[in-house]
Amino acid sequence: VSSYEVLSNSVNFIAASSNYNMSNGGGAPSSTTHLLDFLEEPIPGVGTYDDFHTIDWVREKCKDRERHRKINSKKKESAWEFTKSLYDAWSGWLVVTLTGLASGALAGLIDIAADWMNDLKEGVCLSALWFNHEQCCWTSNETTFAERDKCPQWKSWAELILGQAEGPGSYIMNYFMYIYWALSFAFLAVCLVKVFAPYACGSGIPEIKTILSGFIIRGYLGKWTLMIKTITLVLAVASGLSLGKEGPLVHVACCCGNIFSYLFPKYSKNEAKKREVRRRGTVVICAFQPSALSLLQVSYYFPLKTLWRSFFAALVAAFVLRSINPFGNSRLVLFYVEYHTPWYLFELIPFILLGVFGGLWGAFFIRANIAWCRRRKSTRFGKYPVLEVILVAAITAVVAFPNPYTRQNTSELIKELFTDCGPLETSQLCQYRSQMTGNDAGPGVYSAMWQLCLALIFKIIMTIFTFGLKVPSGLFIPSMAIGAIAGRIVGIAMEQLAYYHHDWFLFKEWCEVGADCITPGLYAMVGAAACLGGVTRMTVSLVVIVFELTGGLEYIVPLMAAVMTSKWVGDAFGREGIYESHIRLNGYPFLDAKEEFTHTTLAREVMRPRRSDPPLAVMTQDDMTVEELQATINETSYNGFPVIVSKESQRLVGFALRRDITIAIENARRKQEGILPNSRVYFTQHAPTLPADSPRPLKLRSILDMSPFTVTDHTPMEIVVDIFRKLGLRQCLVTHNGRLLGIITKKDILRHMAQMANQDPESIMFN
Amino acid sequence: VSSYEVLSNSVNFIAASSNYNMSNGGGAPSSTTHLLDFLEEPIPGVGTYDDFHTIDWVREKCKDRERHRKINSKKKESAWEFTKSLYDAWSGWLVVTLTGLASGALAGLIDIAADWMNDLKEGVCLSALWFNHEQCCWTSNETTFAERDKCPQWKSWAELILGQAEGPGSYIMNYFMYIYWALSFAFLAVCLVKVFAPYACGSGIPEIKTILSGFIIRGYLGKWTLMIKTITLVLAVASGLSLGKEGPLVHVACCCGNIFSYLFPKYSKNEAKKREVRRRGTVVICAFQPSALSLLQVSYYFPLKTLWRSFFAALVAAFVLRSINPFGNSRLVLFYVEYHTPWYLFELIPFILLGVFGGLWGAFFIRANIAWCRRRKSTRFGKYPVLEVILVAAITAVVAFPNPYTRQNTSELIKELFTDCGPLETSQLCQYRSQMTGNDAGPGVYSAMWQLCLALIFKIIMTIFTFGLKVPSGLFIPSMAIGAIAGRIVGIAMEQLAYYHHDWFLFKEWCEVGADCITPGLYAMVGAAACLGGVTRMTVSLVVIVFELTGGLEYIVPLMAAVMTSKWVGDAFGREGIYESHIRLNGYPFLDAKEEFTHTTLAREVMRPRRSDPPLAVMTQDDMTVEELQATINETSYNGFPVIVSKESQRLVGFALRRDITIAIENARRKQEGILPNSRVYFTQHAPTLPADSPRPLKLRSILDMSPFTVTDHTPMEIVVDIFRKLGLRQCLVTHNGRLLGIITKKDILRHMAQMANQDPESIMFN
Repeated sequence: VSSYEVLSNSVNFIAASSNYNMSNGGGAPSSTTHLLDFLEEPIPGVGTYDDFHTIDWVREKCKDRERHRKINSKKKESAWEFTKSLYDAWSGWLVVTLTGLASGALAGLIDIAADWMNDLKEGVCLSALWFNHEQCCWTSNETTFAERDKCPQWKSWAELILGQAEGPGSYIMNYFMYIYWALSFAFLAVCLVKVFAPYACGSGIPEIKTILSGFIIRGYLGKWTLMIKTITLVLAVASGLSLGKEGPLVHVACCCGNIFSYLFPKYSKNEAKKREVRRRGTVVICAFQPSALSLLQVSYYFPLKTLWRSFFAALVAAFVLRSINPFGNSRLVLFYVEYHTPWYLFELIPFILLGVFGGLWGAFFIRANIAWCRRRKSTRFGKYPVLEVILVAAITAVVAFPNPYTRQNTSELIKELFTDCGPLETSQLCQYRSQMTGNDAGPGVYSAMWQLCLALIFKIIMTIFTFGLKVPSGLFIPSMAIGAIAGRIVGIAMEQLAYYHHDWFLFKEWCEVGADCITPGLYAMVGAAACLGGVTRMTVSLVVIVFELTGGLEYIVPLMAAVMTSKWVGDAFGREGIYESHIRLNGYPFLDAKEEFTHTTLAREVMRPRRSDPPLAVMTQDDMTVEELQATINETSYNGFPVIVSKESQRLVGFALRRDITIAIENARRKQEGILPNSRVYFTQHAPTLPADSPRPLKLRSILDMSPFTVTDHTPMEIVVDIFRKLGLRQCLVTHNGRLLGIITKKDILRHMAQMANQDPESIMFN
Repeated sequence: VSSYEVLSNSVNFIAASSNYNMSNGGGAPSSTTHLLDFLEEPIPGVGTYDDFHTIDWVREKCKDRERHRKINSKKKESAWEFTKSLYDAWSGWLVVTLTGLASGALAGLIDIAADWMNDLKEGVCLSALWFNHEQCCWTSNETTFAERDKCPQWKSWAELILGQAEGPGSYIMNYFMYIYWALSFAFLAVCLVKVFAPYACGSGIPEIKTILSGFIIRGYLGKWTLMIKTITLVLAVASGLSLGKEGPLVHVACCCGNIFSYLFPKYSKNEAKKREVRRRGTVVICAFQPSALSLLQVSYYFPLKTLWRSFFAALVAAFVLRSINPFGNSRLVLFYVEYHTPWYLFELIPFILLGVFGGLWGAFFIRANIAWCRRRKSTRFGKYPVLEVILVAAITAVVAFPNPYTRQNTSELIKELFTDCGPLETSQLCQYRSQMTGNDAGPGVYSAMWQLCLALIFKIIMTIFTFGLKVPSGLFIPSMAIGAIAGRIVGIAMEQLAYYHHDWFLFKEWCEVGADCITPGLYAMVGAAACLGGVTRMTVSLVVIVFELTGGLEYIVPLMAAVMTSKWVGDAFGREGIYESHIRLNGYPFLDAKEEFTHTTLAREVMRPRRSDPPLAVMTQDDMTVEELQATINETSYNGFPVIVSKESQRLVGFALRRDITIAIENARRKQEGILPNSRVYFTQHAPTLPADSPRPLKLRSILDMSPFTVTDHTPMEIVVDIFRKLGLRQCLVTHNGRLLGIITKKDILRHMAQMANQDPESIMFN
């Protein structure tokens, strides 16, 4: 069964059947119920969640503390219990270490495999088939440093098949083989995703953000997703599509954390604890993949301890990655560059212009990509994901091959653009007329400029159509590439300007004739940061931290200026980043911590029932029968019901979850004798006095939440939103002068916020 | 009037008069009432706070949003209003920029002045009196690199007075002058603090943590404190006492932020907003003084936007600092070092041992320092702060002078210990027998080892007695110095071990004969990080970030291992860091975000009134007279009163603050005619029906908080603590089935936590 279809089916089902408050997903087939097996609660099943539901952070936290106290009190009883408590205390570290080891190893493997397959599009290494181009020529001792990528062992496909390396025939042969391999990889990737693990597509970051904030999507972080995502990520990267591997790697690390957490009872039993592990998984990736930093902002309700352990996991992962990847520079830092010339105050103007470009690009990309994804969702076109992927891959391959800057690996392109021209640099970008007397651009630089312009247009168009395809696809590398290309173009233009007009008052003071006064590589870095900031809208500080790793503190001001400008410009067109936009597109119940709620509505305007609605479905504490209870449950689709003293007083006693009531009644029917439809149900401490002939009453106090959250009807919504965000609530009851009035759920809040922002409130689909 | 005495007086007063819930500070003389001048609320004074009271975050936030909405809605009315709204929007950035500029400039000035005065203890520069030793010899062109601190322009006191540089006479002369200057500086510092600004003493970090978490201490961040702290910090550092300037610099930056915030109505009117500015002030310091990072953990309830602006301020400050301090290396990073040899797995054992040392030292220091400070508070000894400072300064100077490692500036000592031995290094620590064939320690190294051991003991003892003196004193530098000394000793010991036993199986594989296989400087760095972590108990990640700035990513594992060990060892002896311990010693109402509350108590066990107490003082919504209201206020000392429907139903309507009620009644008496003692007071929307002859009723709905926070009596305290922490509440009402039962205040929670930890609950003194 394709669980992607399960997802979309249940989405539709929920959207259709969703009623006003807390509508239950109803028929969402929760195929994986392994959670239940681990639970040894008094009534099995009580306290678990359905698929596509939001967890209650407060309840989960209390459960964990309870468990912790139990273990602690037992600790002194026997040596065995003491060992168990030690195991429990250390299991956090164990999970973290294992996650770090596994995700570091996977990241290394993905890196190596993608490199090799990427080079396979161009040719093979005859001396050792498993070597990529670079490694192949390293083992050869016939090459000089300047021609380090040419060696006899490495054969292009034309050489191998036609026997000749030059000429139009071999060019066409190479072209053909390039397209052939690109299409094969893309086809394989999309088929694997479609057949085995539909959750493996995309970057996964919007979903992980939602899951971390407390939403259940079963199987999203499972072993199948992990396996398929790892394999297809390699294929997708190697196919040459305009995508990166940073986002999907975060997903992979989260899967690792999730799978290992099942080995430990501490984590497998608690949804909130599991989220801690997953969050750690994301931080693991931070060590070498900065995109995960954006996830750190997700939520307020993680304890600080998590962060500490996360860094440990990151450490382990970085270690493993380094020992796996002994070639190349130490990959702990994505792009390591050093510049030798300082920057000057006047250069801030082009830096700020690059920031404007980054902001515009970000806003444009988000709008275009979301419009395209919405079209894909709503029209018939979305029905053929395989065809779409192959089409995009074919166009990409056909257009990319002739241009050296689009043909090569995007990471390598970025590295080349970031690097400053030195005497050893053989790149076309560094072919100046004379190395000694200044930076008079030669014909190589001019042709490179044209090719870079074409590459920029190509990347911009293709990235819009690529992000959202049904293959694993990240956004970091393409965004940075676009920024780096634009930045390098501006940088070279500035350099030529300074060279030809060094007597202008602007350049006169600091730019001597023949001196290196402008660093085009720095412009590329600034542009990349601006574009990254524009697309993801991470806080400026995060972007700067990411890039600080590449340079020193010296360049913090240019980066800061560009990133701030990009954020301001981008925010002028819409405050949401690409991940938030995709979350909204998919209707996930994600309450953004960044966005401030600034309207003056009160709780009573948002709560359900509204004026025209039927009264709130409630239960009274001691005068309902089993039959009445079940009728209430069957008539409504809410996830829970407030329990009150009596219909007259409307004073609130507690809150009972639908799922818990159903399970408890079934359980009582099975185990307890004398439970009839007219048995009285009571939530109080002591049984009510009943007539002599009435059947035995059923006590349900154990499933009653005695401490539901309440606010008064006059509470401003800004406070309510704050409470939901910071405490991770699922619902909150509304009272007036001590009487129950209504209920506000997370979904009500999200709908209200959508309404206030003039969006369609029905787009929030899940609970 | 010495406001230090005001503080201690009111502390005593509050401690004595504190009644059960929300006791009012009563007579605390709030000398500075400039806050009131800015307020233009309907009833002036409503919504402000007394000194030594906790602010209500939710209320402050709402106030700010209200103001923001007002400005936004007016924006389109006229060009003037539009300008005003622009000014409002930009005032945040303006405050940040000004704070950055001011605190950067002050930090630079303090640096330069402290350096100069520190060298004044040894001698003067004859060519230019305002040069310190280093600058003096830079201008001289007679010195070689090896003897860069000897030049004819620089005269020691003996040379100047006795005319001879060598011999016992001149040694004694220098010794005498050293002690003379040290005592003068210390005396001046303590007198200035005592007379002008008693709040300027100490590091200020415990108080700032408390203020940031929402507690009012008027004048703590005022202009007098700023001025005196700046001056006395220079004096204290120059006096040679075992203290650092990092903590006090955080206080200085916060003062700057606070003072600038008064210039802008947005900030001067709102206590929560002011805290944002101050927090930014602390982050400013992060850029060059890492201690402020510890403050970032303070609270959950800061918006993310603050962080962003903070980084901007940090940038400005860093910029100013750099342009002020053109000599020396770029001071953006405290200690910049580079090592050239990698580390080996076996070395983790000494690194972990250093971690154990750091943890033990941290635990020992905290206990010893707190015990000494408690003794100072409780005994007669604390009455003579000037004498104490002079005594400590005298002992420090007498003992420090003969040992070169204690005589020199502590920052320079740390730098020397961190630095690896190179061919150009002339330090005694690098006097090996032969530079080429290996690291056979010469006599210089052995004597350095002895001196370092003595310096270690000296620093450990003096730091305990110094932290808490009535002069500005930080703890970062002394802690790091102790760790660096211990680390360097261990490093040299390891080096000698490896040199003499290079055929041991442990060293055989990686340590060739004559090779540089151990870096003693790295050991010093690891030791410093371990000690810093042990004393402050900052999260490991923060310590690592601090130190990562000094090295590269290469050394993250040694640092991490040592810091983690140090934290574990330290936590085994007590979980509190030095700042938390001082907060508790002073009885500040600080709810630590780190500490988890793990007990099973319920809200009803913590709330007041207890069983034996008189019933809760409440007000009814429409059947009390002005007289009755005032009687209730006068009989009790609570800060606020719940308002209920009627004594019979006990259903909760809202909450009214004592201060607001008093102000509102006075205001009504002054402005509204016909308010008699038997006038009816009502909190409802419409006036109650009254007998015909009764006087005009008084409507107080405007001061009623209609959305008080409530929890049920069954709510576990762990949830209540969480709510208080995350929302920054001041009080919370407790209900049962919709009826009001009692109240829980922040102070009740702190007392309860102290009780659960077997501490004296009466130590929590403020509200």
